[in-house]
Amino acid sequence: MRTGVWLVGARGSVATTSIVGGLALRAGLAGPAGCVTELPELRGPALPAFADLVFGGHDVVTTPLTKRAEALAAAGVLPGRLVAALPDELAAVEDELRPAPTGATQAVRAVAAARDLIGFRDRHELDRLVVVNVSATEPPAHPHPGHADPAALRAALAGPHEVLPTSSLYAYAALEAGCPYVDFTPSTGARLPALHALAVERGLPYAGHDGKTGETLVKSVLAPMFAMRHLRVRSWSGLNLLGGGDGANLVDPGANAAKVESKQRVLGETLGYVPQGETRIDFVEELGDFKTAWDLITFSGFLDTRMRMEFTWHGCDSALAAPLVLDLARLTAAAHAAGEVGPLTELGFFFKDPLGSPSHSLTEQWVRLVNFTRSLHAGQESADGHAG
Amino acid sequence: MRTGVWLVGARGSVATTSIVGGLALRAGLAGPAGCVTELPELRGPALPAFADLVFGGHDVVTTPLTKRAEALAAAGVLPGRLVAALPDELAAVEDELRPAPTGATQAVRAVAAARDLIGFRDRHELDRLVVVNVSATEPPAHPHPGHADPAALRAALAGPHEVLPTSSLYAYAALEAGCPYVDFTPSTGARLPALHALAVERGLPYAGHDGKTGETLVKSVLAPMFAMRHLRVRSWSGLNLLGGGDGANLVDPGANAAKVESKQRVLGETLGYVPQGETRIDFVEELGDFKTAWDLITFSGFLDTRMRMEFTWHGCDSALAAPLVLDLARLTAAAHAAGEVGPLTELGFFFKDPLGSPSHSLTEQWVRLVNFTRSLHAGQESADGHAG
Amino acid sequence: MRTGVWLVGARGSVATTSIVGGLALRAGLAGPAGCVTELPELRGPALPAFADLVFGGHDVVTTPLTKRAEALAAAGVLPGRLVAALPDELAAVEDELRPAPTGATQAVRAVAAARDLIGFRDRHELDRLVVVNVSATEPPAHPHPGHADPAALRAALAGPHEVLPTSSLYAYAALEAGCPYVDFTPSTGARLPALHALAVERGLPYAGHDGKTGETLVKSVLAPMFAMRHLRVRSWSGLNLLGGGDGANLVDPGANAAKVESKQRVLGETLGYVPQGETRIDFVEELGDFKTAWDLITFSGFLDTRMRMEFTWHGCDSALAAPLVLDLARLTAAAHAAGEVGPLTELGFFFKDPLGSPSHSLTEQWVRLVNFTRSLHAGQESADGHAG
Amino acid sequence: MRTGVWLVGARGSVATTSIVGGLALRAGLAGPAGCVTELPELRGPALPAFADLVFGGHDVVTTPLTKRAEALAAAGVLPGRLVAALPDELAAVEDELRPAPTGATQAVRAVAAARDLIGFRDRHELDRLVVVNVSATEPPAHPHPGHADPAALRAALAGPHEVLPTSSLYAYAALEAGCPYVDFTPSTGARLPALHALAVERGLPYAGHDGKTGETLVKSVLAPMFAMRHLRVRSWSGLNLLGGGDGANLVDPGANAAKVESKQRVLGETLGYVPQGETRIDFVEELGDFKTAWDLITFSGFLDTRMRMEFTWHGCDSALAAPLVLDLARLTAAAHAAGEVGPLTELGFFFKDPLGSPSHSLTEQWVRLVNFTRSLHAGQESADGHAG
Repeated sequence: MRTGVWLVGARGSVATTSIVGGLALRAGLAGPAGCVTELPELRGPALPAFADLVFGGHDVVTTPLTKRAEALAAAGVLPGRLVAALPDELAAVEDELRPAPTGATQAVRAVAAARDLIGFRDRHELDRLVVVNVSATEPPAHPHPGHADPAALRAALAGPHEVLPTSSLYAYAALEAGCPYVDFTPSTGARLPALHALAVERGLPYAGHDGKTGETLVKSVLAPMFAMRHLRVRSWSGLNLLGGGDGANLVDPGANAAKVESKQRVLGETLGYVPQGETRIDFVEELGDFKTAWDLITFSGFLDTRMRMEFTWHGCDSALAAPLVLDLARLTAAAHAAGEVGPLTELGFFFKDPLGSPSHSLTEQWVRLVNFTRSLHAGQESADGHAG
Repeated sequence: MRTGVWLVGARGSVATTSIVGGLALRAGLAGPAGCVTELPELRGPALPAFADLVFGGHDVVTTPLTKRAEALAAAGVLPGRLVAALPDELAAVEDELRPAPTGATQAVRAVAAARDLIGFRDRHELDRLVVVNVSATEPPAHPHPGHADPAALRAALAGPHEVLPTSSLYAYAALEAGCPYVDFTPSTGARLPALHALAVERGLPYAGHDGKTGETLVKSVLAPMFAMRHLRVRSWSGLNLLGGGDGANLVDPGANAAKVESKQRVLGETLGYVPQGETRIDFVEELGDFKTAWDLITFSGFLDTRMRMEFTWHGCDSALAAPLVLDLARLTAAAHAAGEVGPLTELGFFFKDPLGSPSHSLTEQWVRLVNFTRSLHAGQESADGHAG
Repeated sequence: MRTGVWLVGARGSVATTSIVGGLALRAGLAGPAGCVTELPELRGPALPAFADLVFGGHDVVTTPLTKRAEALAAAGVLPGRLVAALPDELAAVEDELRPAPTGATQAVRAVAAARDLIGFRDRHELDRLVVVNVSATEPPAHPHPGHADPAALRAALAGPHEVLPTSSLYAYAALEAGCPYVDFTPSTGARLPALHALAVERGLPYAGHDGKTGETLVKSVLAPMFAMRHLRVRSWSGLNLLGGGDGANLVDPGANAAKVESKQRVLGETLGYVPQGETRIDFVEELGDFKTAWDLITFSGFLDTRMRMEFTWHGCDSALAAPLVLDLARLTAAAHAAGEVGPLTELGFFFKDPLGSPSHSLTEQWVRLVNFTRSLHAGQESADGHAG
Repeated sequence: MRTGVWLVGARGSVATTSIVGGLALRAGLAGPAGCVTELPELRGPALPAFADLVFGGHDVVTTPLTKRAEALAAAGVLPGRLVAALPDELAAVEDELRPAPTGATQAVRAVAAARDLIGFRDRHELDRLVVVNVSATEPPAHPHPGHADPAALRAALAGPHEVLPTSSLYAYAALEAGCPYVDFTPSTGARLPALHALAVERGLPYAGHDGKTGETLVKSVLAPMFAMRHLRVRSWSGLNLLGGGDGANLVDPGANAAKVESKQRVLGETLGYVPQGETRIDFVEELGDFKTAWDLITFSGFLDTRMRMEFTWHGCDSALAAPLVLDLARLTAAAHAAGEVGPLTELGFFFKDPLGSPSHSLTEQWVRLVNFTRSLHAGQESADGHAG
C-alpha cells in the first residue's frame, strides 16, 4: 500500500525531522522509538509500512531540506550521521517540495494546491495521499458566512477576500483532491462546517488538533491522577519557554492565545472544574529547538490539607512530534482505506484538542486508539483472507 | 451494616488522622475529599456508610489519642477545630484502644489479640470487623518452616521463638478471629502461604501492600505515559525526604530497603525493563509529617534524542493515607459481605506493591477497581431486591 | 531614643506583620530572626531598641488591626498565640491608625497627613519619627513640571490636579513634617528632584526602593556567582506566582510592569549585559500570602559548553519583609540622628532597586551596610563618651 | 615566563578538557569563558600567558589523548572542531604523557616521578612547572608515623609499605623536584605535616583542595545569603547524580564519604551551625559527563515562619573544572615566582575545602583572591620597572 505523506510546512523543524526519520526508518538506519504505531498493541497489517511512505510538501520558505536537516543535527535534534547517510533520498524529497501556491483568489490557490497533490499522487502511483499540516500556528480564524456549507464556501473563495485561514485552505484543497487531512497544529484546519460537509461528501476522514508533545502530555496523565484520587486541584500554573521557529511565531499574541487555550482545555474537561492559574508561553531564542516547561500544581486532600507538586519538562518538540506525524499518516491512511469518513475521534490520543473526543485522559484515549487500530487490522485481515 | 475498623498502630499519624477524619465525616463536619469510594464511579449501596464505622485498635505506645490529634493539628496535618469539636467521640475511641498483647509465646499473644478483636466486635454488635495494619514498617521477614501451612504455623507459634513478624502475627490473630485483614504497610502481613491457606479456610479476604500515597502514585501514571508514547526511560532517580514517625523508622536500613524495593517495582513492571537509577529515602526530622520527593527521569525518543523531566512532590503522607484507609475498610468489608475469599487483587489501585496484580498502571488499576465495586453494588442491589 | 514608625498602608499584610512582630519583640515573646540589625556585625548603640519603637500609620481601609492579624495567623504567616497575647498593645496601635487624609487638593491632603505625623510624634514624645511606605504598588508616575523643584511643586499641589502619585504625596508630607521617609515598594516615593531638594533643605535622609524579599534576593547572589566565575548567562526567565493583596494589585498591568522592571535591573547591572528571558508575575489567589517563584537560567562556560540551573523559591513575603521594615526604621532613625541627609545609598542591601547604588551584589551591599552601621555606632559611642 | 602544567591523571576528562582548551586558547581558536584569571579584576602581568603554557602529565591508563578528546566531543563536553583543528598540538602533548612510575618501594616510584618532572622542565626550558592533581578521588588516608616530618617520611618510603596515598606521593615527588603542587581533588595531596615542612624547606607553595564546580559553588553563595538575612536554615539536603569516570569512582564508599564530607563543610562553617539533612552522591552512568544536583533547603524567618527553596544544577563538571585548572596553574606559577611559600590560602575561591581558609563565602573568597592577585601584579610591575 504505497502511501504519500504531504507536509504543509515541509521545511519546518517538525517536517524535516519527520522526513529524515521516515527515510532513516525506511533505510533501516534508525529504530522506531517514539512511534506509537510500532508498539505491540498497535502494530499490524492495516498500517502502511515505513518502506511504503513517500514524502512531499508545500512551504513558503525555500531553504534546502538538507540545510535544515544539518541545522537540526547541529542543534542536537537529530544525528548528523543520518543526514550524511541519506543524500539521494533527501534530494528525491527535495524534488517533491513545492512553493506555496500563488494566485489572485483563494479559489485559484486552492486549485493549484490540489493540482500539486494530484500530480504527486499520480507520479508516484500512490494508493493514497495523506496531507498533514505542520506549519506555524495561526491566530484564531475570523468567522465568515462562507464557512457554513460547501456551496457558500466555493462562492466566497472565488471572490477577492481572504475567506479561509491558510490551514483551512489547504484542508479544502486536500479534500477536493480526494486526500484525508490531519492537523497537527492548533490552527483551524478542517474544523469548519463547510469542510466537514465536504469531507463527508467526498468520503474522506480527517483528524486533529494540536499534537500533544510536552507539558500537555504530562497534564493528560496527572490531571486524571488527581481526579481518580479525589484530590482537589486548587491551582495549576505553567510557564513554557521555547526557542525555535514555533517560539518566535508564538510571540504573536493571537497565535499564543490559540495555543494557551488549547493547553488549558485538558484541565477543565478532565477535572470537571477549572482550577486557578494560567499557562504562559514565552519565547527564549537561546533555548533553540528544546523547550522547558515548569508547572506548579497546588491541591488539597482529606480534611483540606494543602499540598503541592511541581514538574519541569525539558523536551525537544520536533523529536517528540515527528514520530507522531508518521503515526498519524499511517493511521489516517489505514482509516481511509477502511472507508472511515469524517472526524477520526479515535485518534484523540495524539492531540491536545481532540476532535469530538470528550476524554482528555491519556489512558482512556489509549484504550480507544488500541480498539480502533485493532478493528482496522481485523478488517484488513478479513479482506486479505477473502482475497487469498 | 455496622462495620468495625481495627487499626494496628492506632496511635500513629495515619491512624489518628483516619480516626479524626472518620469521626468528622460521621458528624458531618468534613467532606470526603481524598476518599476514592465517594467518587461517583464507586459510590453505592454495598459500602458501609461513614456513619456505620466504629474505630478501635492496638498500639505499643500509650500517648492519648487527643494529644496525638492535637500534635497533628499543630503540624498542619488536620484542622484543630475538628479535634476540639469531637471530644466525646475521641474519648469513645480512646476507650477501645488496647496495648500490644503480651505473653510468653507468640501463640499466647495471638490469642490475646484475637480476644481483643472479638470483644470489640461483640461489644459494638458489629456485622463485621476489618483489621488494618498502619504500624511502622518492619524489616523483611526471616524465612521459617512454620510459614508453610497453618498446622506447621500453629505448632511453631507455641514454641519460644519469634516465628512471625509482628504484622503477620496480627494478620494471624485477625484471621483466627474471623476478620478480614488489610496491610497498608510494606511489612509481610498476610503474605505467607500459611496465612493465605488460613484465610481460605476461614473464608476471609485480605488486601495489601503498602499504600500508594506520594512519589509512587506519580510514578504509576508517568511510567505508563512513557510506555504508551514508546519513549525509552534511560534513568529514573529519586530522593524522598521525610520527617515524622515513618521517617525515623526508615533510618533502620532493613525497613528502608523494604520500602525502596517496593517503590522501584512499579518501574520494571510497567516499562518491561529496569532503567538506571535508584530511589533513596532520607530522614529529615524538621520536615515533620510532610514529605518532599524529587525525581529525575532521563529518556530518549525518536532518533535517540535525549530529554528529561523532573518533579517535586510535597505531600502529607498521613493526609493522603487516611482517606484510603477508610476506603479500604469499606471496600474490604463489602468484599467480605459478598463472600470474597483470599487476596483482593482488585484493590491494586491503592497499593505500591499490590497482591497478585500484574499491572502497576494507575488507570488500569482504576478500571479494575471500578468494575469490582460495581459488581459488589450489583450484588447488594440484587440481595436487597430479593430481601424486599 | 524613642522612635516612631509610621506605616503608610498600616493595615496591609507587611505592616500588620511588622507591628505584631515589633510588639512581640518588645514584649520578649519572639526572637529577632530575619532582623538583619540584630546580627553581630550590625548590632550596636546607635540603633533604637525594639522596646523604644512606637507604631502608627495611615490606611485607606478600615479593617481592625486585630482582624488582619488573626487572618494572617490563620494563613500561617504569624503565630496566633502572639496575636492572642498582645491585645492591649494592638489596641494601642489601633488608636494610632488614621484614615487616608481627604481634601479638595493634594496640598490640603498633604497638610492633613503632616498634621497626623506631628500629632503622633508629640503625643508620644518621640525623639524622631520614620515614615515607611508599605502600601500597594503604584503604576509608574506621569511626569509633571511640578516635579522639578520644591517651589514648583508647592504651586502645583495647590491646584486641582493630581500632581504627585500617592507614595510621593506621603513622602512630601513626611519631609514637611521633618520625618525621614523610606519606600519599601517600587512606587515613586521620594524619587523626584523636588522631593530630593526638599529633603536636603530640611536636612532629612530618605531610603528605597522595593524591598528585596524573594526571587530578587536570590538573583542578587546568583548573578554575581556567574560573573565571578566568568560564566556567560544566556537566558534568565522567571515566573512569580502570588496571591494575597500584592498579587491582586499586580493584576493591574501598570503596577506589574513597575515590579517586573525592578526585578530585571539586577541582572543587567550585575552581569554587564542583559541575558534573554523575562520575569513574569501572575496572580493565583489560592496561594495566599505565600509566593512561589521559579527561575530558569541557561549559561555557557569553557569552550561554550551549555549548562542550566533552576530554582524554586517558596516564601512568605510578609514574613520576609516585616523584619526588614523594622531594620530600615532603626537604621534610618540612626542615620537621621547622625545628621545624614539625602538618599541613604548605604542601605542598598535591602532593596531591589537601590537609590544611587551601582552594585546589586548582595555581598558588596552587605559590606557597605556593615561599614555604614559601624560608623553610626562609632559616632554614637563617641557622642556618649563626650556626654559622659 | 614559560610555564609547565603537569597533570596527574592526564588522560581523564578534566585533564583532557584542560589540555584541549589550553591549546585552543593558545591557538586563538577559543575564548577564555570560565577562566577567572581573564576577568578584568584579575588579569595582569604576573600571570603567564596561555601561549606560554606547556602540558605534560602522568596517567595509569594509556588511551590516546586524541581518543579521549573525541569521546568528550561526542558527549557534548567540548566542540569536535577543536579536536580536529589541533592534531599536531595534541600529538606534542601525547609525547609528554608518562605512565605512572613503577618500582618496589614508594621511594623508588617517587624518584622516577620526580625524574619525569625534571626531564620535562629541562626539555622545554621551562621557567617553572606546576603539578596539578586531577586524578580520581581517593578514600581518606590511613595515618602513619611517617607523615609527621620529612625525615620520618623519607625513612618510611624506603620500606616495603604503602606510606603515602598516591596523591601525596605525587605531591612529595613534585616538591622534591622543586615544583609547586595543586590538588584539585579531595584526596590528601600535600595535606600532611611532613609535606608541609618539605614545601617550606624547598621554598615552594601548594594549593587545594577539591575544585568547587557545581552544587557546592551554589551553596557558597546561598548559605551566606541566608546568614546575611538572619534566616535560620533548618535543613539542607542534596542529591548529586553523575555518570562519567568520577561517578563510577564514587561508587566506592570511601571516596564517596570523602567527597560528601567536603561538600557539607561549607554549610557548618558559613552558618555557624549544621542544619539537618545530608548530601548524597549516586552514580547514574547514563548521565555521562553531565551532573544533575538537586537541593532542598528549608528555613524559617521572622516569627518562625517556615519557607523553602529548591534548586537543580545541571552542569558539566569537566567544562567547569578545566578553566579553573588553567587558572590555578597560572596563579600558582605567579605565586611561586613571587616567592610565596606554603599553603596558598588566598586561592580558597577555587575550592570546596580550602587550605587554612576560614571563609566559605564565595564573595569573601573573591575579595581575597583579587587582593592577592593585585599584589602579585604590583610586584611584577615593580620588578619590571626595576629591570627596565
